[in-house]
Amino acid sequence: MPSSEGEFALIDWFRRHTEQHVRLPLGIGDDTAVVKFPTPTDALITVDMLIEGTHFTVPPASPQQVGHKALAVNLSDIAAMAGRPLAAVVSVALPRSRGPEFAQQLHQGLHQLARQFDVAIAGGDTNVWDGPLVISVTLLGEAVDKEPVRRSGARVGDWIMATGEFGGSLTGKHLTFQPRVNESLELYQFVDLHAMIDVSDGLAIDLHHILDESQVAAILEEDAIPISDAACQTNDDKSPVEHALSDGEDFELLFTVDPEDGGRLLSGQPLNVPISHIGEIVSGTGCEIRDSSGGRRRIAATGWEHRFENGK
Amino acid sequence: MPSSEGEFALIDWFRRHTEQHVRLPLGIGDDTAVVKFPTPTDALITVDMLIEGTHFTVPPASPQQVGHKALAVNLSDIAAMAGRPLAAVVSVALPRSRGPEFAQQLHQGLHQLARQFDVAIAGGDTNVWDGPLVISVTLLGEAVDKEPVRRSGARVGDWIMATGEFGGSLTGKHLTFQPRVNESLELYQFVDLHAMIDVSDGLAIDLHHILDESQVAAILEEDAIPISDAACQTNDDKSPVEHALSDGEDFELLFTVDPEDGGRLLSGQPLNVPISHIGEIVSGTGCEIRDSSGGRRRIAATGWEHRFENGK
Repeated sequence: MPSSEGEFALIDWFRRHTEQHVRLPLGIGDDTAVVKFPTPTDALITVDMLIEGTHFTVPPASPQQVGHKALAVNLSDIAAMAGRPLAAVVSVALPRSRGPEFAQQLHQGLHQLARQFDVAIAGGDTNVWDGPLVISVTLLGEAVDKEPVRRSGARVGDWIMATGEFGGSLTGKHLTFQPRVNESLELYQFVDLHAMIDVSDGLAIDLHHILDESQVAAILEEDAIPISDAACQTNDDKSPVEHALSDGEDFELLFTVDPEDGGRLLSGQPLNVPISHIGEIVSGTGCEIRDSSGGRRRIAATGWEHRFENGK
Repeated sequence: MPSSEGEFALIDWFRRHTEQHVRLPLGIGDDTAVVKFPTPTDALITVDMLIEGTHFTVPPASPQQVGHKALAVNLSDIAAMAGRPLAAVVSVALPRSRGPEFAQQLHQGLHQLARQFDVAIAGGDTNVWDGPLVISVTLLGEAVDKEPVRRSGARVGDWIMATGEFGGSLTGKHLTFQPRVNESLELYQFVDLHAMIDVSDGLAIDLHHILDESQVAAILEEDAIPISDAACQTNDDKSPVEHALSDGEDFELLFTVDPEDGGRLLSGQPLNVPISHIGEIVSGTGCEIRDSSGGRRRIAATGWEHRFENGK
């Protein structure tokens, strides 16, 4: 694309402030980047576009936080496959009114997270315009040792497990969360992960993605769902567990394993984040939730269906 | 990202209208795509973001043409490295007011070109918003047989050559052009390509990119520059050759080879598009253009510097 003078200056700044990486034999700045794959393997690839006003607002989000989130959501997708991230490219439409410092802070937030996860920033496309900030990050990764973990592998009898806590992410965590890349790789060393997804749309919707792809059903235990403090402190007509099921952007791992592996994870707690056992995979379709009195309600993919069924 | 109902419906439509491809063992719809690399090789990766109002206007561009262009500009980048395209991911911010048909037509234009170049569409991220259309395509490719052709390999004495014609692209060609993927691969079989770039910013700017990266200078022959009919028919204060040097978005290949290889290409014309010999690489910095009377003018990276020097 033809670039304006301001774009050339920014591109030059980005180039000077992007570290060399052993995985990028040509550096950056040619027509394409070249990414060295550490081993001959299949490539994992994922893309996420963040839009100002939809996925964040500046303020309260700082440009550094937006840069962090733009890469972090992709790292979370690689984590959901139990893959290892390798390299990313970044395209942006930058608001002209905010000037180059805004772009540089965005870059800092993204590069700081890239360094933390050893992701090579291989290049990008920089545009300045009169609209709001739009940033799209594409992340390349590799499968490690075993096959990538799909959504479709859940089996009847599996335990449904999750890392961390759910609900209330939009009060802050969605801008600062640590993607579960290392946790996912560690889990996959300990146990055979049957199905996995990262919770972005919401615990209920994302569980339904696993159920639909695996052609199975689920029963969740209401009291076992780990609810964040942020979800407990919200002051609206939703209960904390409703927030946990439907808020989304938790970016925790939701996965299924056979009960023996599940028991080992639950008692061993091998990660630096708690692992919870929140339900079981059963035959059928859809998802029910069981409360402490044994009553069951059906939950819809979008969260709650406000139609109660008698537990039986 | 949490998705709205309209987004889910569109994502489902995209999924049903995306062909299976042998290079995508998992199909699409998991947390990441898996791309099979045909041979263990380094990956080429490039990204371009097109913004409505900056890179196209609808109308006159049709949504199909925008989809075509969004992939074509990336194919052109892979061509500039003499690489082979393999797989793409697509992120979009779709204008809510235009409805799903617009998105489906965009998808058709992109997928038609993908089929033509055997590019697997591996996945994407679909957003609906109240802003204009923003589409970002990331394209993966592979180096074939030889090393990717860089911008930095031009040597003193090289011939500067180009495919096709230049200027006036914005009157139409920029929406419909055929990226020079096959031409580039054929060229690289015939000759040793020292340096190459695709002309997107403009012949003068992009030649300067080669010169700067290779630390050499160039003399162009004004009469040898192939000028498009569109550039000749413009009615403004720029001459046709000025249009050819500065308009940009020609998406032709600009490359340097040793004179022996250059002579073979010029006489043999092995491609289905004309190859022109437009100048020589010399030592020094910057670029001069020589007219038919032997007078030389210096041209700036941005096109013309309106300061004349005596030819000597």
